Amino acid sequence: MAQLTTTVVRDGVRDEVAVEEPLEIRVDGEPIAVTMRTPGHDEELALGFLYGEGLIDGPREAGLTADLAANVIEVAGPLARRPARRRFYTTSSCGVCGKGALEEVAVHAPAIIDQATVSRALLAQLPERLRQPAFERTGGLHAAGLFDRSGQLELAREDVGRHNALDKVIGHALLDRRLPLRESIVCVSGLVAFELVQKTALAGCPIIVGVGAPTSLAIALAEDRGIALAGFARGNGRVNVYSHSERVRD
Amino acid sequence: MAQLTTTVVRDGVRDEVAVEEPLEIRVDGEPIAVTMRTPGHDEELALGFLYGEGLIDGPREAGLTADLAANVIEVAGPLARRPARRRFYTTSSCGVCGKGALEEVAVHAPAIIDQATVSRALLAQLPERLRQPAFERTGGLHAAGLFDRSGQLELAREDVGRHNALDKVIGHALLDRRLPLRESIVCVSGLVAFELVQKTALAGCPIIVGVGAPTSLAIALAEDRGIALAGFARGNGRVNVYSHSERVRD
Repeated sequence: MAQLTTTVVRDGVRDEVAVEEPLEIRVDGEPIAVTMRTPGHDEELALGFLYGEGLIDGPREAGLTADLAANVIEVAGPLARRPARRRFYTTSSCGVCGKGALEEVAVHAPAIIDQATVSRALLAQLPERLRQPAFERTGGLHAAGLFDRSGQLELAREDVGRHNALDKVIGHALLDRRLPLRESIVCVSGLVAFELVQKTALAGCPIIVGVGAPTSLAIALAEDRGIALAGFARGNGRVNVYSHSERVRD
Repeated sequence: MAQLTTTVVRDGVRDEVAVEEPLEIRVDGEPIAVTMRTPGHDEELALGFLYGEGLIDGPREAGLTADLAANVIEVAGPLARRPARRRFYTTSSCGVCGKGALEEVAVHAPAIIDQATVSRALLAQLPERLRQPAFERTGGLHAAGLFDRSGQLELAREDVGRHNALDKVIGHALLDRRLPLRESIVCVSGLVAFELVQKTALAGCPIIVGVGAPTSLAIALAEDRGIALAGFARGNGRVNVYSHSERVRD
């Protein structure tokens, strides 16, 4: 089992910090990406990453190679499409811009049509329920989790990279053949930026809530793909809703 | 002048959020990278990014193209070396691992030999002095800044991406022909992860302080390259020092 934290000596005392190591993701022997991550759940990370990029469309076999300090993970089978070196380009009429980025996601993620609602009070509580044991020891990890509609935590992952934490969660759901996540709520410990909503859209999840603020493009994408986006979720029962607020009841 | 924030309507009221848009960085017409960033200081961002990757070794002419929604920046002149698709590989004997990552940085950034010291109390104050006007309006941006040894703020930049904020700061210093930053202190608003120390090392800056926690590999790199790394800098005069503490006096 990989260690999420390690002990260092600082100011003459022992202290725990989050582990960060590179991971190279290969598909059929070909290197696709290197990400700086916290070791553990690497299979989930690799599959979640590839799914979020639209490069695979279902679960795959994946495993760490024994050599190379266990920082290379091999995923079996051909890609669904080639990695786009120039992302956001393929469907955009205006080149690189926010509109192009939204259109690119729309090609791979159908808009979510969801009539179910969730209560504002429940959304506000989720960050407190997101278990972050390694964060509590180090203060140095992001977290992402999946909740059901009753607010029950189904899965949580921690990582020094917030994209990685969500990739691990979605990779786990992919391996469990639970996608699309129609009945779930994605919760993230920090800012809600474009790429987190992109991953949520590709996973087919209709609700994302973050402890932090959303960005302009994250809101635009959530609005476009039918996702209710909430931010600034705090334990005091307050949360801001930025898109599809018709699905959040007071 | 690019807007860092924009107005949205949420829960029926007007609110400000951080702007996020893609930026494609091209060198001599060739696309090198796309980053999600907050518009503004794009020339600094592009140059700082390329410098931090070891792809350019000095200031260059750079400018946004008029078309493509002003989200493409062109940098003139050939690269110092080719972008390594498989990062951390080139000098590593063990493939992808933390040791390889440290060795890769060592090739491009000489170790810093610095006898000067800085007081712990001063380091602890720097995050409070880091101006973050757009963060104050939105809660949704990271910041990076440069301070002199007396604790005077020289430069601050905000961005939805914390790497981008530091790239803008270093790009600005590059354009000012101030590198290496032997007399400066880098301050960042969040976690201190490997890549932020990597950029600091390449900019020749001997001290980095963050509001958040450091990672294991960030500490290892700072130790290796002669950089004093401090984390958890708080306004109450407290700060933790994780490497080269001989340069931080009580």
